[in-house]
Amino acid sequence: MTIFSRILAGEIPCDLVHEDDQCIAFRDIHPQAPVHVLVIPRTPLSGISQATAEHEALLGHLMRVAAEVARKEGLDGRGYRLIVNDGPDGGQSVSHLHIHVLGGRALSWPPG
Amino acid sequence: MTIFSRILAGEIPCDLVHEDDQCIAFRDIHPQAPVHVLVIPRTPLSGISQATAEHEALLGHLMRVAAEVARKEGLDGRGYRLIVNDGPDGGQSVSHLHIHVLGGRALSWPPG
Repeated sequence: MTIFSRILAGEIPCDLVHEDDQCIAFRDIHPQAPVHVLVIPRTPLSGISQATAEHEALLGHLMRVAAEVARKEGLDGRGYRLIVNDGPDGGQSVSHLHIHVLGGRALSWPPG
Repeated sequence: MTIFSRILAGEIPCDLVHEDDQCIAFRDIHPQAPVHVLVIPRTPLSGISQATAEHEALLGHLMRVAAEVARKEGLDGRGYRLIVNDGPDGGQSVSHLHIHVLGGRALSWPPG
């Protein structure tokens, strides 16, 4: 059981910014930018590399919610970056799929 | 008309790694890692911030293709990072939605 499953179960508090029947979004506890939100599915898919064709609708929804979160945070026009890490080289820290939404500062290139 | 529309039209060559009815994927001409591929939709959606509910299926497909590209490039298990930039702060360089697939080296944090 990951820390995200425990957040979804209500066992660990979070600073929630969005919730619906498929996902929740909350602020990262180690923010890397003025806005740093995580969007996670309610279903415990371990990572993007584990997604199958059946997950496409869910993945599309998560990406749309990430963009909606950015809009609500006032980032439209100014800009932002969405990141999905997978495995060791990607720096994935929790084995539950999550999309990082980063904004509120100019993000440099390369992205890590 | 963006450079990506011209690639889709066949006017500019690219190093193609995937194509289907909804998208193509090709190597970035300024790679930031040993593997650096871009996945772009055939439809000229300018960015993730412009996506509507109608685009969810397409977004999900693009994310799945990004993960499939990573698998074909031998990155499963080792890991990788997917990035979508939007607007100036995100460093979006072409106004045609694209997902960056980066791998083949350890990616640092923060992601830019």
